[in-house]
Amino acid sequence: MPSKERIVPIKILEGQGIKVIDQTLLPNKKHHIFLTDTSSVIEAIQTLRVRGAPLLGIVGACGLAIASEEYGPSKQRLRRAANRLTKSRPTANNLGLLISESLNSALLLPSKKRSQFLWNFAKEKLQDQKKIDLSISKFGITLPHITGNILTHCNTGPLATGAHGTALAIIEKAWLTGKIERCYATETRPLLQGARLTIWELSQMGVPATLLPDNASASLISSGLISAVITGADRIANNGDTANKIGTYGLAVLAKRHNIPFYIAAPTSTIDKHCTSGERIPIEHRDSSEVEGFQTERWTTAKIDVYNPAFDVTPKDLISAIITEQGVLQAPYQQSIAKVIFEHDMFRETENE
Amino acid sequence: MPSKERIVPIKILEGQGIKVIDQTLLPNKKHHIFLTDTSSVIEAIQTLRVRGAPLLGIVGACGLAIASEEYGPSKQRLRRAANRLTKSRPTANNLGLLISESLNSALLLPSKKRSQFLWNFAKEKLQDQKKIDLSISKFGITLPHITGNILTHCNTGPLATGAHGTALAIIEKAWLTGKIERCYATETRPLLQGARLTIWELSQMGVPATLLPDNASASLISSGLISAVITGADRIANNGDTANKIGTYGLAVLAKRHNIPFYIAAPTSTIDKHCTSGERIPIEHRDSSEVEGFQTERWTTAKIDVYNPAFDVTPKDLISAIITEQGVLQAPYQQSIAKVIFEHDMFRETENE
Repeated sequence: MPSKERIVPIKILEGQGIKVIDQTLLPNKKHHIFLTDTSSVIEAIQTLRVRGAPLLGIVGACGLAIASEEYGPSKQRLRRAANRLTKSRPTANNLGLLISESLNSALLLPSKKRSQFLWNFAKEKLQDQKKIDLSISKFGITLPHITGNILTHCNTGPLATGAHGTALAIIEKAWLTGKIERCYATETRPLLQGARLTIWELSQMGVPATLLPDNASASLISSGLISAVITGADRIANNGDTANKIGTYGLAVLAKRHNIPFYIAAPTSTIDKHCTSGERIPIEHRDSSEVEGFQTERWTTAKIDVYNPAFDVTPKDLISAIITEQGVLQAPYQQSIAKVIFEHDMFRETENE
Repeated sequence: MPSKERIVPIKILEGQGIKVIDQTLLPNKKHHIFLTDTSSVIEAIQTLRVRGAPLLGIVGACGLAIASEEYGPSKQRLRRAANRLTKSRPTANNLGLLISESLNSALLLPSKKRSQFLWNFAKEKLQDQKKIDLSISKFGITLPHITGNILTHCNTGPLATGAHGTALAIIEKAWLTGKIERCYATETRPLLQGARLTIWELSQMGVPATLLPDNASASLISSGLISAVITGADRIANNGDTANKIGTYGLAVLAKRHNIPFYIAAPTSTIDKHCTSGERIPIEHRDSSEVEGFQTERWTTAKIDVYNPAFDVTPKDLISAIITEQGVLQAPYQQSIAKVIFEHDMFRETENE
C-alpha cells in the first residue's frame, strides 16, 4: 500500500506570487516553481507546467493579481494583462471566465483597492474549488454503472483543479466507498498526462490502477471489462457539446458502441454560456515537436508534417450525463445547462446586491 | 523532394542465414543484422527487429532453413524448430502458415534434400511476395474513395512484407497515379511503428505524409478530411473478422460513424482458414515496459500495472473490403473468403500432382 500524501499543486503567496508543482517534470521529479511575474505565469500555462481547466482558471486569476503588483492596478494595465493571460491557452473556458470575472469586479473598485481584491478573489476561488470538487464527487458516485472498472483519460485529479479533482475525485470516492475495483487510465499522448500524472495521483490515493496505450482503449472497452468512462472537460458549449483532451471523442464513440455510459465531470465554470455549439469552440493546435518524440527523445526523422490538436469535441448525443457541483445534468442539455446558468447568474446578482 | 532509395528489409544468404534491417533502430539508424542461428531469428522476431505479418512468414521459413543447417534435417529436429519459431509470435497467421507449409513439404523429401528445399522455399516466398504486393496495390487503387487524404495505422510498407508492402503499396501507387494527395499516419503507440517506420517509408517513396498521435484520429476523421482508412492485417478469420495492430478496431468504429470506408489490405496467407471467428484468434499481450516509456526514456513511476495487447480484432461488419492479391473480397466474407481458399487449395493440389 503506497503512503498517501496530499497533493498540493498550488500555493498562493499574497502580494508575491504563486508556488506551483512543475507538472512537466512529474512523476520523476516533484519540483516546485515560484512564479512572481506575469510572463512567467503565461510561460508556465503555455508549456503546461500548470494545466487542467479548473486549475488554469485559478492560475489565471492569480496571474491578474500578480500583474496588478507588477504593472500597477490601472484599468488599461489590468485589461492588457487579462488579455495576455486569457490568450495563453484558447480552449479552457475556466481560464478566460475567472480572469474576466476577477477583472470586471476589480474595475468597479477604486484603483488602490484593486490589488487586494484580486488576491482575495484568487484565494477564494481556490477555496471554492475544494467545495466544488467534493460536490462533484458526491454527485458522481450516485450515477449508474459506477462499479467494477472505470476508464478515464488525461488527468482530472488534484493536479488538474488545484483541489481534489473532477473525474478522478469521483473515482477516488467510488473506490473509498467500495463501489469500484480499479481505474484504467489511458497514457494520453502526446504529453502523457495519463501515464505521468494520473497514474501517480491514483497511486498516491491508493486506488488500484492500470495504464494502457490510447490505442488499447477500443480493445479494453470491447472486452466488456469497463463499466463506464469518465473524463473532465475544458469547455462545454451551452448545448452540451464538450471540448476535452484529444482522444476523448473517440472514447465516447466507443462507449456508445458498447452501451456503457460516457460521463463528463466538470465544474459549471467550464460551461461557456455564450457558445452555442461544439463547432464554435476554439481548438488549440500545438507544436509538432510534441509528436516527434517525448522530452529529449526523438523518434522521427527531421522536418515532418504533424497534426496535433490539443482537444477534440464530443457531441452532446454521446454524453450520458454531465456531473457538476450543482448536480448531474442530463439531456436535453440545452435546458439543463440553461437552468444551471440561470440559477448561477441569479445567485451572483443576489450576492452583488 | 527526398531521394528515393529502394528499401531492402531482408536478404537471404543461402546456406548461411539472413541479413535484415534491425527495425527497432529506425529511423535514426539503418543497421543490418546477420542472423545465422535459430535462437537469433526467434529473438529478432520477439523483439520486433523484424515484424509485419508477411515478412514474419518469410523470416519464419528462413528460420526453418537455418535450423536445418544448425541442427540437421531430421524430422524430429525440424519439427521442434518449426514449433519454436511458430510460437515466437502467436498472432500473425503468415508465420505459422509458411513454416508449416515449408515443413510439411520438406518432410515428404529424403532427408538429404530437405535443407536445399527449405532455402528454395524461403527464396521463392520472398519472390512471390513482390508479385503479391504489386497485385494488392493494383486491386487496391480501383476501390472507391481512394482519393484526397488516406489514413493508415501501424506499418504496412516494404518493412512489413519484405517487398513493396500492402496498405502502403496501395497508398504509394495511388499517389504515383495522382489519385491521392496525402497519407496521414498514426504514430502507433506503444512501439511507434507509424512514427518511426511508416513516416520514413513514405518519405523514401516521396508521398506527402502527416504524422498524428493515435488520440487525434477521431478528431481528424470527424473533420471530414479523410476519404478512407486502409490498414494491414495479422490474421483474418474465415468469416472476415480481422486481427491487426492494437488501435485498428477503434479506427474502424470511427470510419463507420463518419461513413468512410475501412479497408484491410493483406495477402491471402493472412487468412486462417481454420479459424471461424475473431474471438478465436490468439492475441499476444506484451511486456509492460513497452508502455512505461520508450527505449531508454521512462515516464512512469516504477511497478505499475499495464494493459498491453499487441493486437485487437475488427469485426467483419466494420470492414468495407479486404484487398488481397487474388482480388477484392467483399461481404459476405464467409463466401468470398471460402472461394479464395478453395481456389488456392485447388491450385496447390494441381501443383503437387
